[in-house]
Amino acid sequence: MKLLEQLQWRYAAKRMNGSEVSDDKLQKVLEAIRLAPSSMGLQPFQVIVIDDEKIREDIFQNACGQPQILECSHLLIFCGWNSVSKPQVDNYMNSIAQTRQIDVELLDDFKESILKFTGSLSPAETREWSARQVYLALGTAIDASALSHIDTTPMEGFNAAALDEMLGLPDRDLHSVVLLALGYRDEHKDEFANTPKVRRKFEDLFEFI
Amino acid sequence: MKLLEQLQWRYAAKRMNGSEVSDDKLQKVLEAIRLAPSSMGLQPFQVIVIDDEKIREDIFQNACGQPQILECSHLLIFCGWNSVSKPQVDNYMNSIAQTRQIDVELLDDFKESILKFTGSLSPAETREWSARQVYLALGTAIDASALSHIDTTPMEGFNAAALDEMLGLPDRDLHSVVLLALGYRDEHKDEFANTPKVRRKFEDLFEFI
Repeated sequence: MKLLEQLQWRYAAKRMNGSEVSDDKLQKVLEAIRLAPSSMGLQPFQVIVIDDEKIREDIFQNACGQPQILECSHLLIFCGWNSVSKPQVDNYMNSIAQTRQIDVELLDDFKESILKFTGSLSPAETREWSARQVYLALGTAIDASALSHIDTTPMEGFNAAALDEMLGLPDRDLHSVVLLALGYRDEHKDEFANTPKVRRKFEDLFEFI
Repeated sequence: MKLLEQLQWRYAAKRMNGSEVSDDKLQKVLEAIRLAPSSMGLQPFQVIVIDDEKIREDIFQNACGQPQILECSHLLIFCGWNSVSKPQVDNYMNSIAQTRQIDVELLDDFKESILKFTGSLSPAETREWSARQVYLALGTAIDASALSHIDTTPMEGFNAAALDEMLGLPDRDLHSVVLLALGYRDEHKDEFANTPKVRRKFEDLFEFI
């Protein structure tokens, strides 16, 4: 399977060489994110794709000092929803009804179950629920990138409060969850570019019943 | 890209037909999980692969009444670590040293940074951190399955306390995070087998700066 080969090939590049990911390849990675499954199909997140050099410089200075912020081709900011509003659920119902050419009232039970579930979550639980959906889509983004020979660096260690402020996320009921740098490894500057991959042994990670 | 085609093909099967996923294909899905990236490379989770009919019946009766529990080929229980122990970090360091044929003391700074980070998390934060890594690996598991034309149903709505008790997870410092049924859709019984996929519009999900 090509995916297994490409997962062996990939690693979290510590240094990138500044080369651009083509529009065509970028679109495919984003389309994979769009098609990723999510809890009840709600896709409770937003992805900000940053190319602009000034903003990247600002993020580098104030939220995440890793060199890939500047050296990558595109920086993806995965933002989770802070809450789920009734209009958002209504939009989703309308989208299902339109896509499947059915009467939206036929979805009333499904809509109620979504509102019941999301209404049962505390604000902190809602953020965690949306963050988990982000990570699922992140996995798919990394797979799609690897299949296109695009390097990726997922980044958790950043100043989320500073980044959220910079991007005006709180006003939009969003919060940054994880960053993904897309680009190409710099084999000369990155000492990890050619080190063997370390993973837990198969028999350690899996159990069979 | 074949992944995009297969992500279009896949959906969360509501009914499965009981057919077996071959050993060869199962191994490839598990290998994709094993190769998935994780926070600092720690892979803070365990995957229990359930084939046994009695245990599946027990899970169906007491933790998750969805028919795929019985109709799938294999049921994967993704379990997150509840805590990160020093021996677990030491094991990881030894594994890196062995794989890269370097002196383990060279990893002291990395080891300290891991212990500092994991030590800064509350028990609840640790569980959420490991759950996020599970979701990332879940994304890769779903992608690898789709590429092998295996249907998957990720399941969040189950009685985690009952399942954890049944599998003895608390004694092992683990907790169930999400289930993934692997198998083959039953096109006759599943009304969703041929409905068009619903996803948010590209311009709604992504923003470009």
